[in-house]
Formats: sequence, structure tokens, C-alpha cells
Amino acid sequence: MIYSFNNDYSEGTHPQILKAMMETNFEQNDGYSLDIHTIRAKELIRQEIKRQDTDIHILVGGTQTNLLGISCALRPHQAVICAETGHINVHETGAIEATGHKVLSQETEDGKLTTAHIQKALTLHTDEHMVQPKMVYISNSTEVGTQYSLKELEDISRFCRQQGLYLFLDGARLGSALTSSCNDLTLADIARLTDLFYIGGTKNGALFGEALIISHPDLKPDFRYLIKQRGAMLAKGWLLGIQFEELFQNHLFYDMAAHANEMADRLRKGIAACGYSFHWDSKTNQLFPVLPNTVMDELKKDFLFSAQLATDEGHTCIRLVTSWATKPEAVDAFLKALQKLS
Amino acid sequence: MIYSFNNDYSEGTHPQILKAMMETNFEQNDGYSLDIHTIRAKELIRQEIKRQDTDIHILVGGTQTNLLGISCALRPHQAVICAETGHINVHETGAIEATGHKVLSQETEDGKLTTAHIQKALTLHTDEHMVQPKMVYISNSTEVGTQYSLKELEDISRFCRQQGLYLFLDGARLGSALTSSCNDLTLADIARLTDLFYIGGTKNGALFGEALIISHPDLKPDFRYLIKQRGAMLAKGWLLGIQFEELFQNHLFYDMAAHANEMADRLRKGIAACGYSFHWDSKTNQLFPVLPNTVMDELKKDFLFSAQLATDEGHTCIRLVTSWATKPEAVDAFLKALQKLS
Amino acid sequence: MIYSFNNDYSEGTHPQILKAMMETNFEQNDGYSLDIHTIRAKELIRQEIKRQDTDIHILVGGTQTNLLGISCALRPHQAVICAETGHINVHETGAIEATGHKVLSQETEDGKLTTAHIQKALTLHTDEHMVQPKMVYISNSTEVGTQYSLKELEDISRFCRQQGLYLFLDGARLGSALTSSCNDLTLADIARLTDLFYIGGTKNGALFGEALIISHPDLKPDFRYLIKQRGAMLAKGWLLGIQFEELFQNHLFYDMAAHANEMADRLRKGIAACGYSFHWDSKTNQLFPVLPNTVMDELKKDFLFSAQLATDEGHTCIRLVTSWATKPEAVDAFLKALQKLS
Amino acid sequence: MIYSFNNDYSEGTHPQILKAMMETNFEQNDGYSLDIHTIRAKELIRQEIKRQDTDIHILVGGTQTNLLGISCALRPHQAVICAETGHINVHETGAIEATGHKVLSQETEDGKLTTAHIQKALTLHTDEHMVQPKMVYISNSTEVGTQYSLKELEDISRFCRQQGLYLFLDGARLGSALTSSCNDLTLADIARLTDLFYIGGTKNGALFGEALIISHPDLKPDFRYLIKQRGAMLAKGWLLGIQFEELFQNHLFYDMAAHANEMADRLRKGIAACGYSFHWDSKTNQLFPVLPNTVMDELKKDFLFSAQLATDEGHTCIRLVTSWATKPEAVDAFLKALQKLS
Repeated sequence: MIYSFNNDYSEGTHPQILKAMMETNFEQNDGYSLDIHTIRAKELIRQEIKRQDTDIHILVGGTQTNLLGISCALRPHQAVICAETGHINVHETGAIEATGHKVLSQETEDGKLTTAHIQKALTLHTDEHMVQPKMVYISNSTEVGTQYSLKELEDISRFCRQQGLYLFLDGARLGSALTSSCNDLTLADIARLTDLFYIGGTKNGALFGEALIISHPDLKPDFRYLIKQRGAMLAKGWLLGIQFEELFQNHLFYDMAAHANEMADRLRKGIAACGYSFHWDSKTNQLFPVLPNTVMDELKKDFLFSAQLATDEGHTCIRLVTSWATKPEAVDAFLKALQKLS
Repeated sequence: MIYSFNNDYSEGTHPQILKAMMETNFEQNDGYSLDIHTIRAKELIRQEIKRQDTDIHILVGGTQTNLLGISCALRPHQAVICAETGHINVHETGAIEATGHKVLSQETEDGKLTTAHIQKALTLHTDEHMVQPKMVYISNSTEVGTQYSLKELEDISRFCRQQGLYLFLDGARLGSALTSSCNDLTLADIARLTDLFYIGGTKNGALFGEALIISHPDLKPDFRYLIKQRGAMLAKGWLLGIQFEELFQNHLFYDMAAHANEMADRLRKGIAACGYSFHWDSKTNQLFPVLPNTVMDELKKDFLFSAQLATDEGHTCIRLVTSWATKPEAVDAFLKALQKLS
Repeated sequence: MIYSFNNDYSEGTHPQILKAMMETNFEQNDGYSLDIHTIRAKELIRQEIKRQDTDIHILVGGTQTNLLGISCALRPHQAVICAETGHINVHETGAIEATGHKVLSQETEDGKLTTAHIQKALTLHTDEHMVQPKMVYISNSTEVGTQYSLKELEDISRFCRQQGLYLFLDGARLGSALTSSCNDLTLADIARLTDLFYIGGTKNGALFGEALIISHPDLKPDFRYLIKQRGAMLAKGWLLGIQFEELFQNHLFYDMAAHANEMADRLRKGIAACGYSFHWDSKTNQLFPVLPNTVMDELKKDFLFSAQLATDEGHTCIRLVTSWATKPEAVDAFLKALQKLS
Repeated sequence: MIYSFNNDYSEGTHPQILKAMMETNFEQNDGYSLDIHTIRAKELIRQEIKRQDTDIHILVGGTQTNLLGISCALRPHQAVICAETGHINVHETGAIEATGHKVLSQETEDGKLTTAHIQKALTLHTDEHMVQPKMVYISNSTEVGTQYSLKELEDISRFCRQQGLYLFLDGARLGSALTSSCNDLTLADIARLTDLFYIGGTKNGALFGEALIISHPDLKPDFRYLIKQRGAMLAKGWLLGIQFEELFQNHLFYDMAAHANEMADRLRKGIAACGYSFHWDSKTNQLFPVLPNTVMDELKKDFLFSAQLATDEGHTCIRLVTSWATKPEAVDAFLKALQKLS
């Protein structure tokens, strides 16, 4: 049977979450996220991020959260700066442009923006014949598995505040970043250093759900209008609340992410031991080893994964993703197959 | 304890659906609705609607489905005609306008459009200084509980085809319409007479999910791009597939709707027996009785429901909604309370 | 030869404006309305409106000015209230909706909004499931020739400020309103009582050009970005400046409008003398007499005008428009023809 | 007195055009470009392009024409490919994104797209998680003064037709390209090889006006609705018609462009004679010489021009633009000043 390392949203959800759904199934709850589970989930999140002065909205998916968080902040002529590899730049079918805003993508080496990248975009956009950069979008962990340090995030945050730029952090894979072996950030740091960010559930063991935390006061008013208008307001919104209650009442959020990272570590070490290198250096749950095409093709017979890019004529950088549900046996089977081919 | 007749999405889902979710929880499935459950759900739906030449997309919510179905069909200068009470006209925060299109609302007596209403909009819009009507949007059952007969739908369908107008049917409460005592329509009729329509899950016992069926060939290309762009593509899309498998493999869709209607019938008869009239004549799961304000205020102490409109200074038309999960005991308790107050 | 009363933009421009264009033709001017003529025109306008704290932008056309003025002020979920006859509601091909905003049109008797109309829209829009009214749009003179008194404008202005609504006045035909026999408003009143408004040139003897005056501080920032983004920034912007210099340095703006009104008075009296009534009571340059269809059809052989609406089976309300260029002889010829038919 | 080489739209218009405006000033013309002058101008253009099966719309400005031509052709998820230097990419304040579409910009050496650039964009955009490239936008002459040969345009055209991409040519400076010493294209070639293109008036001696020619049948329907909706329909549309009558009835279009090119040739030869090189090789009316900063700063005292980019610490590439109105004396004065500084 074929095992998939295609992504971190191939399985359902943690049994604890399913159990909570069953136990509450016949409750009558208020719709549209006005229910008590959502209220409690928000309290748990606010404790975790150590900021009471935040508005929290739990939304269904990542593209939805990105387009809402960005379009809520920008006037029509304003634009968002991001890395060329940023999810909003390529992999969301122009969702941001569909709300009327240009995405100013910057080439980076490792998927991470620096203040130099941001300054470059500012320097190029000087007057009313060009869009006006007004927001910076970063992802943590990034789309290529890398992650920001506290120092790096502080630098960006300070620069954005000096320049009057909103800072938005896409946390679709924030769990993996925060539980990575080289992480020195906390949720509280992120809440302090950004204007809005979200904590991803979909890619960390929830059925779905992204908790958007808005701390900048200018971005709070009327946000629920925007949610409704974009078709993003879930009727049975407590389904989101219940999941984030479970994620944050017993460290489940961190536990699941830590498991995914552990499985990635095991994979990484095994792949390195076979003598292969990695295109990007990741300590999170996405790995980008470079394999000979012949090896890759053999592995494809038993495992699902995607090809990220051709590094030269004979080699491909592939993407392997582990999750809260990845089985050690599957990792070992992959490594065994790789060893045999190496 | 307070019982809610506020809407038909106050409870979770039918246990059969929860069971299916549990049983499939550790399967590895392809994301983005490319999984085998969704494929099978579509097959079941195609059997039911008796049309193989349709594209089916199962989406999370109603506003999302409305805005996608409408904006996929219209060029920038084109508009959609609907009843003034149409969900897209008032209760979706301008979601259609946010995609750039004007909603041409027509006053109606009972929430139902006729060809005369449509003709009126066509007559008023004659040249390039005005928007161009290109689609007709109807709901079945309507937002005020009424429903279309086969003859009425055939008339509208014929007229739309003569005039080159797309016909879109919002089926958020289609289950209730199809199982109503005065219904003479089938899903196959609707699939034959419209260009696109959807079968609502959210308001008929699913956790969420609306199955959009596109039969007009011009509306099919690239629809998945549009879904993704609007942030409406669920990563774990099989959750939608599983629910519609359950809804359509054992008549669960019809059974749940029939239960809601049965509960509404019981309510309606009891209310009528107390001597009250109804503002709109509904045989579906939404009832609109007119009550003296004093009676309404008393009932509010034990029951949740919404006030629809003031009919005169002393009376209010309230809205009572039953669902797949409504308990006969709750209906009886409501009627008993009403009797006592009458 | 056929004479046209179709509209007030059938001829070129006042010779004084053409002369100014010729005299400045070989000057080298800065582009994009940064030239000295535009600067001087703005000074002249600021003197006239008696408000120095305004931003002024001279734009090419009315629809452009409406969509810019409205979309600059509204967040995505916000809507604009207007009369059902408002130009933005029907005659601009959904230009406002194309910028994402719903137009909340209110039925009126005479094309004029009152605070009661505005309150009605506010009452209906109560929460995040509906759009949020945030602006009121009125026209002076209105699309049906009527006009606001100082008292009426003060009432609306006070109400809007109490309710946090922006007040926008479409002055495409403001000249005609201000020089009408029943006017008691000045440009200074309008500048004081609205948040933004414009002074129409196109329909009052300019080749083109509408001067948008923004007094609310929230609406000023970055407006030139919006102009450019909507394709509304004229490269040779001094053409706009030159025209408004001419309009406001020697009362030409008022003189041309007064001429149009004089011609309309002459028409109105003559038509009334023939025993015909008017559908709307206008003292501005648009008249709406009700004629027997047979009379209308005969007049069409020698005159161009539009049919506004059928008042009964045998009668039609037609629209006659006079302009700065209307010749008394043409008016007399029309009246003579009418007398012969009556 | 300071002389400006800032752009080609610093002066009014050719006296012949002013004369035509005066002669027709008191004609009564139909509004909205339905007049006889516009009809005749279109006939003249159709003769020149040797294609009768085209729809022609004369619009006021370039950004307007770009956003209309592009948004008329694209469905919401579709994108336009252009050179990084393309006008729509940087200098139109995100006008294309404001209509909902992503601009896929490609780095080029000389501002010209090749089939290789287009293929690169196609290769990267493969499925519904990304936008779908559907149009190619090129400018002739380009924003950096270069121009396409017949062979190059044929290659792009063939490739686009094979790939199902619309080809749009921005001809804001088409006159200069067609009268350049190295041109081998005709208007008829362009009409044959593109799906839509425009002939620029604003930058070639008209007061304003761009004639958009649509040859692809899919792009023709309802275009006037789109013009009106975007606020781009000029009330006194005959002003556009009159200008294009003049431009095309006596070769004025070519004569004015040839003059601008002649002035640029004179400048180019003189600059080269002083020993300076050019950053881009242009035979059109925009020149990009690289000057020592000290020289540039001295020249700025007597001449207006813009700095394009810093080529190294001590040198800047400046932009000099000539026009239909550029005087030989001004060119000679510039060259004399340059010689003195060299």
C-alpha cells in the first residue's frame, strides 16, 4: 500500500477532537461563531498569546484567512510585500489580486523576508503612479520549511512600525515552527510583534480552522462584516470553536506539531545518512531533499510526494511532509527503501 | 431550559454522518475534493438528478456557493435578478456586489419570482448605460417558506432560455421544499430546468456542505480555479464528500428534511388551532405566525426565535424554524405555552 | 433641420474656453494636473466655496467622479444610500457595484432624499449579515430636475453627521440648481454641509470636467493614487485646469447655467400656456412635460428629445433639456410647433 | 527659460486639430461617441489597418484603455503576462489588479517579450491553485524605447494563437515605433497579428485619445457597457472622433511621430558625438543616455528630464523624450550645453 508524504492534511483529525464533536453534537448552539465554545477557545488563545486586547476570529481555511486579513487592512491603491515563494504570491490563484490588491513579491534565498527586501520594495514605489506598499506578509514556518528567529522577527517588526507598514504573519504551519528544535519564538512574541497573524489548525491536526488574531486597533472594526461578505462565516461556527478548545486546553496544538517535527527529524537524519543534501535547510515538518531522478522515480512506486523543482538535469528537489498522524513505521519504510536505492 | 427555533443549523449532524467521519478518520485522502468519497458522492448525486452531463462541486457554505455560482457566470457589466427577499439581496453583506455585480431585486408578494417580475427588470434595462440582466436567482424553498411548483419552475425556465438568462436555484433549503406536502418537483426536474443549482446540506443535517450542480456547458470551465481564488477550497475536502455520500446513499437527505417538515406541520396546526394566522403560507420548515406582542414576549422567556417584521402596532410576525433534530417534545412544549397564553 | 433638446452636452464649449485653449496651446505644462492652470483653478474654486481646507481634484467625467468619490470613502462592506432615480443607481452600468459596493436605493416622489428615507435604510441594515450604510448620495439639481433648499440640505447634513454617514453631492448639474429662480443655496453652503461634492463642467458648457471638492479629512489622503488606478488621471491635465479657470474667473459658470435656465423657463411657460402639465416640478434646465402620444410623435419629426416614462396609455412624460448653447429661436420653434398641435 | 524633455505630452495639440474643434464647436452632436465624427474616424482607421471586421472604441487615456482591454478579456482567475518594465506592471497604480487580475511580469533585457518569456510563465502556472495566464501584453514602442520587428511580432502572435492566449498591444507610442528608422511593421500587420491593440493619440500630438481596435470576436460583445461602467465614456465623445479624423485623414498621425523621431535622432547623434552611451538602444522618441552625475546635475538647471536609474555610483541613465512639438532649437541648446560640459 502506498503511503503519502504529500502534505500534512491527508488524514482527518485527532481523536480527542472527534470525541469533543460527538459529545457536543446535540447541543443547540448559536450560529456564526457566537457560541460558547468559540468564546472559550478565544479565551484559551488569549491566555496563550498573553494579549487580552486582541480580536480573534476562527476561520475555515488559509486562503480565506489570508485574503480577509489582507483586504481588511488595505485601501484600494495599497499593496502587500511578500517573498516570491509566499503562499499568496503563487498558490492561491490570485486571491489577493481578486480583492483588488497587488502582491509585490521579492526574490529571497530561503523564503524569508528581511528588512532589506522590504526596503527594496519601498524604494521602488515612490508616488501615485505606483501602488503604495502598506503591508508585509511573512509565513512561519515558510513555504520552504525555514523559520524566523526572535531576532529576525523583531527586526522586521521594528522596521514595519517605523515605516507605517502592517505586519501579517501567516501561521498555517506555525505549530511546526514553534516546536522546531531551533525555535526561540513564542506565541506571545508573535502577538506582540505583528499586527495580525493566525494559528493554523488545518495543517496541524484539526479538521479545518485557522485562528486569526488581530492586535492592531485599526484592523478590528467590522471584521465580521468582511467575513460574511466573503462567504467565510461558517453557520455551525462552534465546530471551529470546539477544535480550538481542544487544541489549546491540553497542549494538543504543540503535541501534534512536535510529533510531526519528530517524524521529520527522523526522516532528515535518515536521508542525510544516505548521503543526500537538502535544497533548503528545514527543521520543521517539510523537507526538501535533492535526489537523483532514478531514485525519485523508484520511490514513487511506494510513496506519494511532490517534486518541488529540478536542481539539475539528473536531480530533483522533492518535498516530503510529515504530520500529527505520520507513523514512525512509514518513515522507516521510506528510509529503508531509500537506503536500498542508494 | 430554553429551546431554540431560531434556525435549522443549531445542532451538529446526524449520527450516521459522524460515524462515517470516525470510520474514515485515519484514511489518507487526496486533498481539495479530489478524493474517492467526493467522487462517489458526486456519482450518487448524478443518479439522483438523472443527469450525467453535469459538473458537481461540493462547497462549505451558502453565501460562498451563491457568490461563486453567480460570479462564474457574469461578465463585469451583467447583473442578477432576484426577489427582494432573496438571500443574496439582503442577508449576505453585499457578497454579490463585492464580486462586482449589481443585484436587481424585485418586490414580490410571497418571495417567489414570476416571469412578469423578470420581464419588468428586462424592460427597465435597455442599453449600455445600465447593467445587463443575465441571470435569474430563485430560492426553493424561499426565504419566507414558500416553494415553487413544477409548472412555475417550467415557466421561469422557458422564459429564461428564450431571453438568454441563466437560471440559478439556491437550494439551501431544497430538502424541505422537496419533501413538503405540496411539492410536485424532483431533483431531476430541477437539474433539467435550471443552469445551475445547489443542494443544501448545512440547513438539512450536515455539519456543512452545499452541492453545486452545473449543467450549462458555458459555466463549467475552470470552476475549480474560481473556488480556490475565493478561498472556498477545503483542504480536507473529503469531509464534504463523506457527508454527501451519507446524505444520498440511504435517503438520509430526504428523511431529515421530512422530519423537519413534520415538526413544522405539527407546529403550524397547533398555532392555527390557537387562532393565529400566518403572514406567509408555508408548507416547509419555516413558519411565520403573527402573534400579539404580549404573547411573543412571554414565549421568549422559554423559546428562542426571531421577529421577522411588525405587522401592526400590536402584532409581530415571528419566524419559527424546525430541523432534522427538532424534538416533538419541544414542539409540544411550545404549543402548550402558546395555548396557555391565548 | 432637426434641433436637439436631448441633453445639455450636445455642443462643444463656450468660445472663451476655446480661446484659452488656443492661447496656451504651445506652453509646456506639467502633466497629470500638477500644472499652474489647475493650481489657479483650484484657488478660484476655493475662493468661491469659501473653504481653504479642501482638496480639489478636477476629473474628466461624472461616472468617474462618482465612482472615485464613493469608493474612496467606503470599506468593502459599506454601502451608499441614494434615491431610486439617482444617477449611480440606474444610469452608470453598475459602476459603483463594480467597485464592490451595494447601492441602497430608496423610492422617492421627486428624486430628493429626506432624512426619513435615510433612516429607513438604516433601520433595515442592522448587523454584519447585511451591508453597512456609510454614505448618502444626493444630486443637485436631481435627475428629475428638482433641487434642494438650504433647509433641506441642512437637515440631511445634520442627520448624516449624527449618524456617522458621509454626505456626497453629485453636482453634475449644480450650475442649473444654483442659478434657478427658487434656489437659496450657495457653493459655500454646499462646501460647508457636505463631506465631498462636485461642480459639473460637462453639462454646463465645458468640453468636459468635474471639480471634486473633498472637505472631510478622512477622505483626502492618497486620493491621487485612486484617480490614477481607475484610469482617471488625464495626462494633459491642464486642459481641465484651463476650463475651470475660465468658468470661475468671470462668472462664466453662473452665466452659462443662467442662460440654460432662462431657456427652460421660456419653454416651461410656453408649454404650460398650451395647457400641458409637468410630471415633476422643475425650475432647472430639465423639463418633464406630459404630452399626448400623438403630439409627441409629431414633435419628434423636428426635434430630438427623450421619452422618460409612459404616464398612461395615451400620454408620455418627455424630457426636454436646455443648455448654455440653446438658442431662443429653437425654443420658440418648439413652442410654435406645440401650439399648432394643441 | 527651462525646456522640458520630460515627456511627449507637455504641449497641447496640433493646430489642425484645434482648428477642427473650433469649426465644429456649435454643431449638435450625439453624445457618447455615437456621433458622425467618430463614425468617420473609425472608417479612416479601418482603411489604414486594412481590416473591416474590427470594433473600434476611442477612449480618453492609456491606463483606461489598458484596464478595459485587459479586463474585458479575462475571467476572474485569469492573468496577463507582460515585461517587468510594462506600463501596466509598475506605472498604473495597480489598475489591472484593481479589476481583479494578476499581472505576471517577466524580466527582460530590453523591455521586449519573447516566446521564451511567455513559455516560462506558462510552465510555472499549471493548475487551479495558480492563476491561469490568458493574455500577453506588449508595448510598441516599449517603455524603454525599443520596438518589435515584424518577425518578432509574428513569432509572438503564432505562439499566442497556439497556446490560446490573447495578444494585446499597447500602442501609446505606436506612432513613434511605426515611423522609426528601423521599423518594418505596418498598422495592418499589427491588426492582423494581435487580438486587440490601440493607437495612441495622447503621446502623439492629440489632446487626448487612444483608439482601441478589437479584432478577436470573443472580445467584441458589450464592450460599450464596460466603457460606461469604468467611467470611461466621454459625454462629448465627438471630441475624440474629431481628433482621430484629423490624425488619419492627412497622415498627420505619421507626420507628428516622424517629427518626434527626427528630433530624437538629432539628440541621439549629438549625445553619441559627445562620447556618451545609451542604456537601451532606441530608435524611437525616448532616449536613455548614461551621463556622469555631475553633468546631469548641470543640465538640470536648464532642462527638465527624469532620471531613470543609477547605473553605477557616479552615473545615471536619464530619459529624454521628444514630441511632435519639440523644437530643433531646444535640441540644439541641449546638445550645446552637453558639449560644454563634456
